[in-house]
Order: sequence, then structure tokens, then C-alpha cells
Amino acid sequence: MTAHHARPIAHGGRLDAARRLYPDAPRPWIDLSTGINPRPYPLPPIAPEAWARLPDDDAFAALEAAARGAWRLPDASALVAGAGGQAFIQLLPRVFPARRVGVLGFTYAEHAACWAAAGARTATAASLDELAAFDVAVIVNPNNPDGRLLTPAQLARLAQAMTRRGGLLVLDESFMDFTPHASATALAAMEGVVLLRSFGKAYGLAGLRLGFALCAPARAAALRAALGPWAVSGPALAIGARALADESWRHAAAAACAVDAARLDALLTRAGFTVVGGTPLFRLAAQPDAARRFVSLCERGVLARAFPERPDWLRFGLPADEAAWGRLAAALEAGA
Amino acid sequence: MTAHHARPIAHGGRLDAARRLYPDAPRPWIDLSTGINPRPYPLPPIAPEAWARLPDDDAFAALEAAARGAWRLPDASALVAGAGGQAFIQLLPRVFPARRVGVLGFTYAEHAACWAAAGARTATAASLDELAAFDVAVIVNPNNPDGRLLTPAQLARLAQAMTRRGGLLVLDESFMDFTPHASATALAAMEGVVLLRSFGKAYGLAGLRLGFALCAPARAAALRAALGPWAVSGPALAIGARALADESWRHAAAAACAVDAARLDALLTRAGFTVVGGTPLFRLAAQPDAARRFVSLCERGVLARAFPERPDWLRFGLPADEAAWGRLAAALEAGA
Repeated sequence: MTAHHARPIAHGGRLDAARRLYPDAPRPWIDLSTGINPRPYPLPPIAPEAWARLPDDDAFAALEAAARGAWRLPDASALVAGAGGQAFIQLLPRVFPARRVGVLGFTYAEHAACWAAAGARTATAASLDELAAFDVAVIVNPNNPDGRLLTPAQLARLAQAMTRRGGLLVLDESFMDFTPHASATALAAMEGVVLLRSFGKAYGLAGLRLGFALCAPARAAALRAALGPWAVSGPALAIGARALADESWRHAAAAACAVDAARLDALLTRAGFTVVGGTPLFRLAAQPDAARRFVSLCERGVLARAFPERPDWLRFGLPADEAAWGRLAAALEAGA
Repeated sequence: MTAHHARPIAHGGRLDAARRLYPDAPRPWIDLSTGINPRPYPLPPIAPEAWARLPDDDAFAALEAAARGAWRLPDASALVAGAGGQAFIQLLPRVFPARRVGVLGFTYAEHAACWAAAGARTATAASLDELAAFDVAVIVNPNNPDGRLLTPAQLARLAQAMTRRGGLLVLDESFMDFTPHASATALAAMEGVVLLRSFGKAYGLAGLRLGFALCAPARAAALRAALGPWAVSGPALAIGARALADESWRHAAAAACAVDAARLDALLTRAGFTVVGGTPLFRLAAQPDAARRFVSLCERGVLARAFPERPDWLRFGLPADEAAWGRLAAALEAGA
């Protein structure tokens, strides 16, 4: 186990910084630094009231019904909506304080940072067995950036152990939408589990700010009290309810992203990278020379995601269209 | 000084509940239960990127520049954007913990409730002198619901006293937009002040969820760390930046609301109420029989704001159009 670093954290999506660092790069930038679906859910018409009025219980209820259907959530699990998955990552350490927090493997850095900011001692665990010794265990599943995927059966044992001894298993399923068979929402009713879901990544609407915590009712009540009323915007409630009820779009989007992920793997392999893993929304590629390749891509207006802690890794999101595929292919070839 | 009640809190805008309680009321309901401008800022076109991408620093910077201009914010004061003024009311007690919190007069209930939920002892103070004895003093200015307005000079003394002894003055200016000459933003750079501003009320876009804390840089950094990245949606950043820079809309809206407020006062007076006060966005009216009048209005599809603690008061927002004015006038007359 290794100790975690303090903030600040490098994030994907920092196109503004890239533009300033590489002012001569060709425009428009091809931003592959996030795992956001580049083909967003088509925006439905938004009623004027969704903008004008404070969101009311009926709007929350419609969103909840759609989410329950989409995720086959057990009746015994409550659902809390917030302004993005990150809102819950910020909130969990304040609402469920703990002393010792273990995070599985190298993963999305905000979990450890937020627990540490709240005064917890955080450490990286290498296995589920190691995790079981902590007050709070955090698992990003599928994992960001390497896509490691644990089965609900593997997670159930840890969830039971945490529930038995009053601990907490945080399951971050931010990238689970396109692999729904692997979801552990069946565990979300257990006292020792909080399961997080994102809306913006799979639906390509990250600017909307919508995310969810699925958990037992007592934990949900505590989270709702901390969020306060009107934590989600009216447009987010309306668009989320519509999109989560649209099973055919989700199936088509999952298929399209799977095709693109395979195409991206082939492109990266041809360019000398070894594909380490990923999800349908991003691919993780390794190369000893990755730091230089990152700069070379930036000089050509292509932003990948680098990891200061893992200089041999680059993560790539899916290009949005043929123009972006062409720019990526040319930039990879030029830097090889 | 009196002790505060615990949650739950009655809020305006609960049209869903009113519909269920009065199923036979004529539709559409005329919702006058909030202080939200019924003529919203016209929605500008929203770039697809504002929905799709994670909001970046450039989008925050554009919003901040517009807000600074609109409010003549001193350079030494920082600005933090969040998903509505309520987000900051929830956050302040967690970020700046305190033991004894005084709230001036009868006012918006969420301040005391959130401090109490965080473990503080809260009390209502009757004067600025009483407030000065607390670790944290909360003043809603202009006050909701009675419109009591303190001058920047009156507030400056309390702000200085709080700053001197490491206390905190929370100034909630949620309803200040249309009386900008009375704003105390000049005090926002002081160490002992956090000033809150709302966007959705004056701009008629409460569903957007956008609010601000203005304060010294160290307090701003603590609030930003607690909010985390991407706390405001892309559409809120874009619309807020556009609207706050639009001085001519703000002047015209302030004038229109002032005219409507005077018209509402005349209507309420004619109907047997005594107008106690208010702001350009809502009026507070007193009548010994107010509880019965509230029910009578509901039966006619008009929702006012009642106060369980003050059964002789009703608060009325501005009707949106002539049809709403007509319905309100008829309903008031029928119940007189």
C-alpha cells in the first residue's frame, strides 16, 4: 500500500490549458482526454418551466422512475440525484466520516483526495482482501483508467463484510452504462454499500451535471439532507428522465462505442502502443515513450490524457467523427 | 431570542403538493408562492459544447467577469460560483464550523436549519447589537419575507467587529438585484464576511441552479475545495455570463417589477390586506384571517406563500401576465 498525494489533481478535459500551452497547434483541437461519449443523447425540447421554476418533487420522481427502470434497481435501494457524480465524491467523506480509507488500485484520484481532505488516512489497496481491512473501501468499477472489471459476485462478499461490521463499500460505476450486465446495482440496498452512477459520460452530456447515489434509505436520507433542496437543475431532471427511459438509444450507443473502441485499439496498436485495457468509452495505451508522444499529439492539436504517476500511459477517448479519426491517425503516425 | 425549529421546512414553489391537495381547483395554477421573476431572462442559444463538455476554467472566468461588472465587486473580493444560493447555505456550516449562530429576525428558514444540522446552537436575534455576540451572524438583506433593508453603513460596523474577532457575518443578498444601490458587495473583501448572491430569482431562471459566494480569497479557496470541480452546469455558466453582462435588461426588469409590485400592493390593500413590506419580487401582506384566505385562494387555483409560524401573513410573488392578474383579482375578491 502506498500513501496518496495531495491536490491538485490532473483531470481530462482541460482544453483551455492545452490551447494556451500549444498556441500554434492546428484548430479545432481534438479532445480525447475524457471518457465522455462524443455522440451525445439528442437534446429533447425543454419546457420553459424546467428553466424558470424550482425543480419540484414530481420532476425528481420522474427521473427516479426512469433510472430505476434503466438500472433494474432493487425496491429496497433508495436513489439520490445530485449535480454530477463528483458532487457525491465530495460529499461522502463529510456525511459518512471514517478514519481509514482504502482505494483499490491506481484509479480516479478524486476519491482519495476527498477522503484525505476530510481528514481520513487513505491508502491504495492491491486486492479485495486488503480492502476488507479498511473502514471505507472504494472501488471504481469498471476502473478508470485501465477498465478492470470485478463481478457482482466478487463484490458481494466485500459488501457483506462491510455491512456486517458497519463499514462502507463505495462502488463507483461511472463508466458502467454500456456494460449493464456487469453492474452491481443488486447490492445497492445493503447497509454497507453506496453505489455511484454518472449520467453525463455515457450520454455525452457532462456539462449537464447529473449523477446518482444508490444506497439504503437511511444513507440516502443523510445524503439528501447534506445536498439540500433543488440540488439538480430543472433541465438536468427533464433530460435525464427522458434519456434514461430510452432503452433503444442506449443499446445503439453501446454498440457504436464498442465498434469505435475496437477501431481505436487497432489504430493505437498500429502506432506502437500496447492497449492495456479500458471501457467502451476510453482506451488505455502503454508505450515507454508515451510522454514524448503526448507532446507530439498536442503539437498536432490532439489532446490525450497523461498520468503524471504513470509516464508510460496515455488514455484516449473516442473520436467524434471521421475528421477527428483522420486527425488522430495522422498525428499518431507523425509522432511514431 | 428564541430557539429555532428543526426541519422539515415549508418552501414556496410546492405546486405539486398544492395540485394534490386541491384537485378541483381551476387550471392552470397561478403560482405566486415564490419570489422568482415571472418574466425570465430570454434564453440565449446554448452552444452544444456547454451541454457536452465538462465546464472549464474559461467558462468560469467569463461568468466571473460578468458578475464582477454587474455587482461592482472590489478586486480584493473573490467570487465562487455554485449550483444555486442554497448550495452555499448548505455548505457554510460545514466549511466554517461555529458553535453559536445568530440569525436576524424572522427570515428564510434554511440558514438556521443548516447551521443546526451541522451541530451549531442557533437563535433569532432582534437587532444588530444582539447579533454581534455570536460566532456567526446571518442577515438576509433585503429580508425575506418582510423586505427589511439594512444599509451598507449599518452592516459595515458588524462586518468590522466580526472580522476583528475572527467571527463571520453571512450576508444573504438573494433578493438584492433590483435594488443594487443598497448592496453591500463593497464589504465582501473583509475576512469576516461571506456575501451570497442568487441568479435564478431576479433573472427568472430558478431551475438553472446558479448562485455565488463573494468573500476573501482564503474563504473562497475553502468553499471551492468543498464544492469540488464542475459544481456549475455548462448551460448555467453560459446563460449566467450573458445575462449578468446585460445591464439594459436588468434596468428594464427592475422597472417592470417595481411597477408590478405597486400594482400588487394596491390589489392586496383593496382586498383587505395590510402590506407589511417586501422587495420588487414579492410582497408580504397581513390579515387576521390570512389562513382562511390562503385556502380560499388555493380553491381558486392561486398559490400564495403561507408561514406556519406567522398565521396572519401571506407572501405574494408577481403575476406573470394579465390572465394571472385577472385570476388573482377575482380570487381575492371572492375570498374577501
